[in-house]
Amino acid sequence: MTTLKGKTAKESLTINTEIVLPNDTNHIGNLFGGRLMEWIDKVSAITAARHSNRVVVTASINNISFDNPIKQYSVVTLEAKVSRAFNSSMEIFVDVYVEDRITGNKTLCNQAISSFVAIDQNGSPLPVPPLIPETEEEKKRYDGALRRRQLSLILAGRMKPEDATELKALFDKD
Amino acid sequence: MTTLKGKTAKESLTINTEIVLPNDTNHIGNLFGGRLMEWIDKVSAITAARHSNRVVVTASINNISFDNPIKQYSVVTLEAKVSRAFNSSMEIFVDVYVEDRITGNKTLCNQAISSFVAIDQNGSPLPVPPLIPETEEEKKRYDGALRRRQLSLILAGRMKPEDATELKALFDKD
Amino acid sequence: MTTLKGKTAKESLTINTEIVLPNDTNHIGNLFGGRLMEWIDKVSAITAARHSNRVVVTASINNISFDNPIKQYSVVTLEAKVSRAFNSSMEIFVDVYVEDRITGNKTLCNQAISSFVAIDQNGSPLPVPPLIPETEEEKKRYDGALRRRQLSLILAGRMKPEDATELKALFDKD
Amino acid sequence: MTTLKGKTAKESLTINTEIVLPNDTNHIGNLFGGRLMEWIDKVSAITAARHSNRVVVTASINNISFDNPIKQYSVVTLEAKVSRAFNSSMEIFVDVYVEDRITGNKTLCNQAISSFVAIDQNGSPLPVPPLIPETEEEKKRYDGALRRRQLSLILAGRMKPEDATELKALFDKD
Amino acid sequence: MTTLKGKTAKESLTINTEIVLPNDTNHIGNLFGGRLMEWIDKVSAITAARHSNRVVVTASINNISFDNPIKQYSVVTLEAKVSRAFNSSMEIFVDVYVEDRITGNKTLCNQAISSFVAIDQNGSPLPVPPLIPETEEEKKRYDGALRRRQLSLILAGRMKPEDATELKALFDKD
Amino acid sequence: MTTLKGKTAKESLTINTEIVLPNDTNHIGNLFGGRLMEWIDKVSAITAARHSNRVVVTASINNISFDNPIKQYSVVTLEAKVSRAFNSSMEIFVDVYVEDRITGNKTLCNQAISSFVAIDQNGSPLPVPPLIPETEEEKKRYDGALRRRQLSLILAGRMKPEDATELKALFDKD
Repeated sequence: MTTLKGKTAKESLTINTEIVLPNDTNHIGNLFGGRLMEWIDKVSAITAARHSNRVVVTASINNISFDNPIKQYSVVTLEAKVSRAFNSSMEIFVDVYVEDRITGNKTLCNQAISSFVAIDQNGSPLPVPPLIPETEEEKKRYDGALRRRQLSLILAGRMKPEDATELKALFDKD
Repeated sequence: MTTLKGKTAKESLTINTEIVLPNDTNHIGNLFGGRLMEWIDKVSAITAARHSNRVVVTASINNISFDNPIKQYSVVTLEAKVSRAFNSSMEIFVDVYVEDRITGNKTLCNQAISSFVAIDQNGSPLPVPPLIPETEEEKKRYDGALRRRQLSLILAGRMKPEDATELKALFDKD
Repeated sequence: MTTLKGKTAKESLTINTEIVLPNDTNHIGNLFGGRLMEWIDKVSAITAARHSNRVVVTASINNISFDNPIKQYSVVTLEAKVSRAFNSSMEIFVDVYVEDRITGNKTLCNQAISSFVAIDQNGSPLPVPPLIPETEEEKKRYDGALRRRQLSLILAGRMKPEDATELKALFDKD
Repeated sequence: MTTLKGKTAKESLTINTEIVLPNDTNHIGNLFGGRLMEWIDKVSAITAARHSNRVVVTASINNISFDNPIKQYSVVTLEAKVSRAFNSSMEIFVDVYVEDRITGNKTLCNQAISSFVAIDQNGSPLPVPPLIPETEEEKKRYDGALRRRQLSLILAGRMKPEDATELKALFDKD
Repeated sequence: MTTLKGKTAKESLTINTEIVLPNDTNHIGNLFGGRLMEWIDKVSAITAARHSNRVVVTASINNISFDNPIKQYSVVTLEAKVSRAFNSSMEIFVDVYVEDRITGNKTLCNQAISSFVAIDQNGSPLPVPPLIPETEEEKKRYDGALRRRQLSLILAGRMKPEDATELKALFDKD
Repeated sequence: MTTLKGKTAKESLTINTEIVLPNDTNHIGNLFGGRLMEWIDKVSAITAARHSNRVVVTASINNISFDNPIKQYSVVTLEAKVSRAFNSSMEIFVDVYVEDRITGNKTLCNQAISSFVAIDQNGSPLPVPPLIPETEEEKKRYDGALRRRQLSLILAGRMKPEDATELKALFDKD
């Protein structure tokens, strides 16, 4: 339905760099999950706004896992990219890196996936440009987005499991 | 393996009440997803700490959907309860209510599910008490927790889809 | 004069749970009085708004004493209840509890009393529902509220000491 | 008991100037009582630290009344002065002024009285210098401090009303 | 061109007192330059607003040097004074003092110079009162302001070096 | 004296993206200079830390001009690059861009120059790698850095004007 011109992920790539301060950490000096989520949402929202050139709102957070604790005073880099667009919604990937102060090496320590919707002043959804994946990783994430979307619709009770063909294949192939 | 005495959800129930201030809202006066996530993480972490009497860290965020925009100056109530415990991890449900200032009626506008792990000073996991579900809703959430845990392990590549028997049933039953 | 239907304290009870973070504490790791006062005012204001279903403003703070220091990373629970209503003003009690992380025991460590007024868009006072005390403690606080109100009016120069019959009795009975 | 050399109020006078920002105000654009209390506590604590050259903690807040609403973007000046010292505690007065942006006229809009205690690293009280009142207003506040202290001790259950001779006179004189 | 009545620096003197909290400091417990700059801008802006009785905006920051580290929990006093006015702009000096908690001695540890412009609701510049220097230091800063203004205009490419007679003299005298 | 291996500006480039929220703006909805300075200092400090792999402190702020007001809810991008290194100090340029929400066009609206010093745990300066300029702009900024350093030393009274050969040439050439 939308005839908007497609855009690449690079065009709306958003980067943020944060320092983990004392108030961002718990008892044992590790970054609070809630603070990281706030940073993730901010950088994702800017990416979605850049892709759509619209006001956007967070629609859902998919899985975020916190595998590696991030220590106080770490330098944290967040890179957010649109992985796929569906009519008025966009799936956004955020890669979270922590860098070693001495060597400067960056380690990927978190990945987060969320969805944003472009809206008008009344909160009604607006069409957004399709995403044109370029790199291998972008293509892989683009393909996975449909499966994640089906899962999300099922969990929200808006799709029947038997209609989630992409997702079903995940189990059937075994 | 753990022989800790079970606890009910009521024992660690945590309630928070927040007012949505100007800096918490976007262009069109709606609460930022990232601020809500920060509130959700804080109230969930306190619940998990109360259930385990330990230092806890956010392990993962499962699905959070933002269906209804929350307006500036709304009074938002968050209620967090443990839905199930697995060895050292706890699944936490947060129900988010917004109340009408004139009538005082509360409306459920969000639900969030996340997992926390109890750790010692070195970050090693510690056993936590089992959860004893009491109400109908607590039992339903307790049952669903296993399915969500399998999904989470699959998505993280730590479980094979064919071993996720609970989850598989969701698709097979159709 | 007001014919509004009375409400119980339970109907507007407001609970908040906070974690004492590094920026909330002084040199020796104790919670700043000013931060605690901010939390007390927030939870009290929500209670007064719930009781009156109106916009409310802080009218005065009566005695708050800080007997026990609250340490960094403590979990602090604030419970606010209306103790009595007078035309357009409400007296609010806040009980502040600190809990032991290991045993989970809660200790009452502060009590605060303040007054709020319900107002319209021009700042003019509006009538509020009377308070119906239920428990023994609620009745005791309800009775004391008149004495505290007289004291407050005397200190503000709005009542003559000889007219403060309730308060005067406190000294005369000796 | 203390033989510390007395100090004047001027020596520890502390002034702060704040701008009322959007997040400091409620629905109808008035400064939150809780934010003003936080500012009052901060400026009072610095005054008490300057008078005693010690770490200090808030001991109690006496009456604060909020008679005049303070509007968004107002410039607010807080002036804190020690009004009297008792062994290890100090009573602090804060005068809160709002200024008219066009004429520059300052209006006194609030007064707050609180008490601070000087402590050592273990939290034990330390003696503080006596206060030497100089101006008429300082002398008047110095005299009233004893009455307020008795009232505070009675309310806290630490003094019997019949022993509060200064305070009792307030009622007897009528 | 402006016929506004001159004002002294004392009339718009603004004082702020801040405590350096954990979130204001880096790895090794020293105040962040960015936080100090924020405090400097706030106190300068209030001074400029008081001198002009107008809305003001920061026009430029001239040299600020951070010679002495300021430690966590230090009490920092900022004193801002107008040093000279030019049509619609004002040069503001801020002296930053740190005090020793034990002796109470204040040490000057920073000086900052910035410029503000008075504007109307459309952002157009408005005339401001001339500054009448009184003390020796005020006169010295008043004289230097012209040289700094020329330097600033040259750096911004708005003045040719040969026209900066005051500034040129600095080099020619050698 | 230092024999550290040179690094390019690209290696320590730091990007931040911020949204201008209500509490960041004044009366007429423009970003406060102090907030922008705080952002500039943060992104500059991370760049200097990346270039030196050391703890760094702000040494001085050179000229920052605020030519164009930045409106509430603008998306602001800050790009910080080392322009030159001198023994233990680094000059950092920050380019500040504002983007149009509809067209996505970015406009350069501010430039800031500051200096950072790499230090050890005692605050003593440590050598940093030389900067290797690559692009035309990097070379131009590299050349100008010496002139700015001389100016800064003169203003701080640490260099005589006649020794500032680079700077003097600026005036002599006219």
